[in-house]
Amino acid sequence: MSGRKTYSLVEIAAALGIEYRGQPDTQLRGIASLGLAGPEHLSFLSNIKYKPFLDNTLAGAVILHPDLAVGFTGNCLLSENPYLMYARTSAIFDSTLKPRAGVHPTAVVVSEYIHDSVSIGANCVIEEDVTIGEGSVIAPGVVVGRNSRIGKNCYIHANVTLYHNISVGDECIIHSGVVLGADGFGFAPGPSRWEKIHQLGGVQIGSQVEIGANSCVDRGALEDTVIGNNVILDDQIMIGHNVIVGDGTAMAAGCQIAGSAVIGKNCTLAGNVGVVGHITIADNVHITARCLVSKSILQVGSYSGTIGVSASTEWRKNAARFRKLDELYRRVALLEKQLKLNDESEG
Amino acid sequence: MSGRKTYSLVEIAAALGIEYRGQPDTQLRGIASLGLAGPEHLSFLSNIKYKPFLDNTLAGAVILHPDLAVGFTGNCLLSENPYLMYARTSAIFDSTLKPRAGVHPTAVVVSEYIHDSVSIGANCVIEEDVTIGEGSVIAPGVVVGRNSRIGKNCYIHANVTLYHNISVGDECIIHSGVVLGADGFGFAPGPSRWEKIHQLGGVQIGSQVEIGANSCVDRGALEDTVIGNNVILDDQIMIGHNVIVGDGTAMAAGCQIAGSAVIGKNCTLAGNVGVVGHITIADNVHITARCLVSKSILQVGSYSGTIGVSASTEWRKNAARFRKLDELYRRVALLEKQLKLNDESEG
Amino acid sequence: MSGRKTYSLVEIAAALGIEYRGQPDTQLRGIASLGLAGPEHLSFLSNIKYKPFLDNTLAGAVILHPDLAVGFTGNCLLSENPYLMYARTSAIFDSTLKPRAGVHPTAVVVSEYIHDSVSIGANCVIEEDVTIGEGSVIAPGVVVGRNSRIGKNCYIHANVTLYHNISVGDECIIHSGVVLGADGFGFAPGPSRWEKIHQLGGVQIGSQVEIGANSCVDRGALEDTVIGNNVILDDQIMIGHNVIVGDGTAMAAGCQIAGSAVIGKNCTLAGNVGVVGHITIADNVHITARCLVSKSILQVGSYSGTIGVSASTEWRKNAARFRKLDELYRRVALLEKQLKLNDESEG
Repeated sequence: MSGRKTYSLVEIAAALGIEYRGQPDTQLRGIASLGLAGPEHLSFLSNIKYKPFLDNTLAGAVILHPDLAVGFTGNCLLSENPYLMYARTSAIFDSTLKPRAGVHPTAVVVSEYIHDSVSIGANCVIEEDVTIGEGSVIAPGVVVGRNSRIGKNCYIHANVTLYHNISVGDECIIHSGVVLGADGFGFAPGPSRWEKIHQLGGVQIGSQVEIGANSCVDRGALEDTVIGNNVILDDQIMIGHNVIVGDGTAMAAGCQIAGSAVIGKNCTLAGNVGVVGHITIADNVHITARCLVSKSILQVGSYSGTIGVSASTEWRKNAARFRKLDELYRRVALLEKQLKLNDESEG
Repeated sequence: MSGRKTYSLVEIAAALGIEYRGQPDTQLRGIASLGLAGPEHLSFLSNIKYKPFLDNTLAGAVILHPDLAVGFTGNCLLSENPYLMYARTSAIFDSTLKPRAGVHPTAVVVSEYIHDSVSIGANCVIEEDVTIGEGSVIAPGVVVGRNSRIGKNCYIHANVTLYHNISVGDECIIHSGVVLGADGFGFAPGPSRWEKIHQLGGVQIGSQVEIGANSCVDRGALEDTVIGNNVILDDQIMIGHNVIVGDGTAMAAGCQIAGSAVIGKNCTLAGNVGVVGHITIADNVHITARCLVSKSILQVGSYSGTIGVSASTEWRKNAARFRKLDELYRRVALLEKQLKLNDESEG
Repeated sequence: MSGRKTYSLVEIAAALGIEYRGQPDTQLRGIASLGLAGPEHLSFLSNIKYKPFLDNTLAGAVILHPDLAVGFTGNCLLSENPYLMYARTSAIFDSTLKPRAGVHPTAVVVSEYIHDSVSIGANCVIEEDVTIGEGSVIAPGVVVGRNSRIGKNCYIHANVTLYHNISVGDECIIHSGVVLGADGFGFAPGPSRWEKIHQLGGVQIGSQVEIGANSCVDRGALEDTVIGNNVILDDQIMIGHNVIVGDGTAMAAGCQIAGSAVIGKNCTLAGNVGVVGHITIADNVHITARCLVSKSILQVGSYSGTIGVSASTEWRKNAARFRKLDELYRRVALLEKQLKLNDESEG
C-alpha cells in the first residue's frame, strides 16, 4: 500500500469535474468508509442510512449529495450521485501495477498477431492465429486457443482458459479460472450410449464486459453463444451454449443460464438465479436471488421465487403441510360448498 | 472456419448408413438450423414444433424422419432418429484440429509411461508413474499427479488438474478447470478445532465420460469415488467423496452430489439438482431442475421440488402465507370440525 | 498404495495416546470401513447404526467406544471419540509424498522472500514481494500475485491463483482451482453504462484454514475480506467482497455468501446455502442444505428453508396451489367469518 500516491482535494474535484468545499490542499491517499476513515482518507455518503456516521467521521473529505452537505462543516465534494463519484475515485486510487508490455520468455506464443504493447505473462500459451489488441494484459498461466481474438485494453487474469474461435471485445476484464468456449452440453441418446454432439459454434463476448472468477461461457452448438456489451458477470456463473445475454445486463454470483435462453438488455439477476433453456426474458427485468425461471418473462418487472429461512422446527411443520397443499385446497373448496349448502338449506 | 472440408450428400448418406433423396453431388460444408441454413448447409428436423421452418428453409439438405419427408421436395437424408444423425454429422463437420503427438519442450514430464502417440501441450506437468494411453491429448497447463492413469483417446483440455492416484478410462473428455481428486470434505470436531480426515481413497472415472468446465470430483475418504462409463457431466458440477454414479447417467450444469450418495444408472439430473449425502437414487430416475433430493428415491419416475418464479408482489404474499401454512391447516381442520358439529346439531 | 508403511497395534495406540486390547504386534497397513476391512486394516465404529457390521468384520483392529467394546473379542483401540481417533489415524496412514524443498527450474520466482524449506513446483509464478513461510508447498502451476503472503506449512495445490495483497496464515490447505482475491462485484450505474468500482481491499485468510477446489474468495472493496482461523470450506464456495467468516465455521460445497455478510464463529452451513449481502449470522448457527438466508439470524439454532423432492405429478399439484396460497388463506378467513356468523345467527 505504501506505493499509493496522494492527491489533493482540489485535484480530485478537478478529476471528477465536480465542486468541492473546504481546504483545497487537503492531502488524501485512499478511500475508506465513513466509520473507518482517518484524515488521510476520502469517504462518501451514498445511502441515507449511513447519515449518522457523517457527524462523527474523521475523513479528510466526504463525497456528498448537496442536500446532505447542508450544515456539514468538513471538506466535501458535491455530487448528485456520490456512489458514481466513489466508483470514479476508486479508479484514481487503484495503485495496482500494470505489467510491462512484452512477452515473458517462458510464454509460448505461436501467433504472430499480438500488438507490441500487449503484456503476456509467464507460462502463457497463445496458439496459432490469435489476435490480441493494443494495451491488453494477459496474466501468467493463461491459455488462448487457436483463432481466438482479444480486443484492446483487456485484462485477462491468471489461469484463464479460452478455447479456439472465441472473440472478446475491448476493455474487458476476465478473472482467474474463467473458461470461455468449453463444449456446450449436447448429446443424443444413441442405441447403446450418449453420442456427443460436437459443438461447432464459438463464443462472442462484447466490449466493456467483466466476468468473475471461475465462471464458464460454453461455445455454441451451431451458432455462437453471445454476451453483449457492458454485461457484468460475477463469480461462478454458468452460461450454456447458444445463450444470448443483452447489453448492460448484470448477474450476481452463481447464476446458471441453460442453453439457448435469451436474456434481454439491462436485466439484473441477483445471486444464483437459474434460467431454464430455450426461454426468453424481456429487457429491464429484475429477478431476485435464487429464483428458478422456468418459463419466459415477457413483461418488465421484478420477479421472485424463494421463501427464505425459518427456524428448522417451524419450517418442518410448514414444509410438511406444503406436501398436503393440494389436499388442503380441496378441503377448503368442500367446506365452501357445505357452507353454501347450509346457507341455502337455511335460506 | 475456412479450413472446413466439404462433403457431398451421397458421402454423408454413406457415412451415416442411411438413405437420401435428391442430388447426390450437392456440396455441404457445415450444419445450420433450418431457419439460418443456406444452400451450403446440412440441416435437420428433430422436433415437430420446428416443422414450419422446413417449408422455407434454404438448406442444401435436411435430415428428416420419413413421415415428415412426404411432400418435401428438397434434398434429404432419411432417418427414424434425425437428432442422432445430427449428432453423428456434427462429428463429420467438426474441423477442430487435433494437436500433434509429442511432448512440448516446455512440458515437465517425469513419468516414463506415456505412449508415443500422446500429445502433451506446453507447460504441462506430468508427475511420477503416470500412465497415458494411445492417442490421448493433454492440452497446455494440465497438471497430472503421481500414479494417475489416463486411458486411450482421451482429450484433457487446458488447465485441468488431476491429483495423485486418479484413474480415467478411455475416450474421455475433461474440460478446462476441472479438478479430479481434491480432498473430500472430511473433518472431525476435535477438542479445540476441526481435525482433518486425510482422504486416502482415489477417483475412478469410467470410459466415454465427459466432464464439463470447472467441475470437481473429490477423492474418497477410504475407498474411491466412482463415476461409471458413459456418464456425462456438464459444467460446474460437484461430486463429493465416495459418491458412486452409475453408467449412462447425465447431469446438467451445477449439480451438487454430497458424499457417499449412490446414483443409479441412466438417471438424468437437470440443472443444479442437489443430492444430500448417504442416500440412494434408483436407476432411470429423472429429477427436474434445482430439486434438493433429501431422501432416497427407490422408484423409477420423475421427481420435482421447485416452485418457479412469480411477479415479486404476488410471490411475497404467497411466501408470507407459506410461513403460516401449518396454522392455516389447523384452521381448516377446526372449520371442518365446526361444520360437522353444525351438521350434527342440525341433524 | 504399495509404498504404504505398516504400523503395529501398539504403535498406533501409542501415537493416539489411547488404550488397546489384543495382540500388540498386529500389523496394520491401512484403514477401511468395517464391512470392507481385511486383517491388514484398522477400522472404526463411530455411528451406532453400523454396529451390526462389527460382529462380522475381518478388520485387524477396530477403534471403539469402551461401551461398545464390551463383548468384542477382536483387537481394539478404546476411545470416547472413535471418529476423532479415526481422523488422527488417517494422518498416520496418509502416504502422500510431500514434494522436496526447492524451486523447480521452470518456476518463475521474482520475490526474494521465500524460505529455503519451501517447495515451489514446475511452472509456478511467484511475483514481487511475495513471502512464503517455512515448510510450505506450492504445487505446479500456481500463480501468486505481488505482495501476497503465505504462512508456514501451507499446501497450495496445483493451478491455484492468488491475486496481489492476499494473506494466508499458517497450516492452510488450498485446493486446485481456488481463486483468492479476484475483484469483488462492485459497479455503479453510470449515465451510459456500469462503471467499475475498483476493489482496493485485499483478502485475509487465517491459520488452519482449508479451502476446497474451485472456490473463490473475492478481495474487498475498501477494507479486506476476512476468513477466520480454522474455517473449513468445501468445493465451489463463493465468498463475496468484505464478507467476514468467524473462526471455526464450516461450509459444505457450493455455499454462496454475498458481499459484506458477517458470519459468526463455529457456524455450520450445509451444502449450497446462500446468504444475501449485508446481513449478520450469529455464532453457533446451523443452516440446513440449500437455504437462502435473506435476513439476519441473531439467535443460536438450526434454520431451514427447502421443501425437498416429490414425484413430479404430485409436486406439480402442490406447487400450483402454492401460487393460490394467499387466495386460499383469504377463503379460509371468509369461511371462518361465515361460520362465526352462522353460530351467532343460530345462537
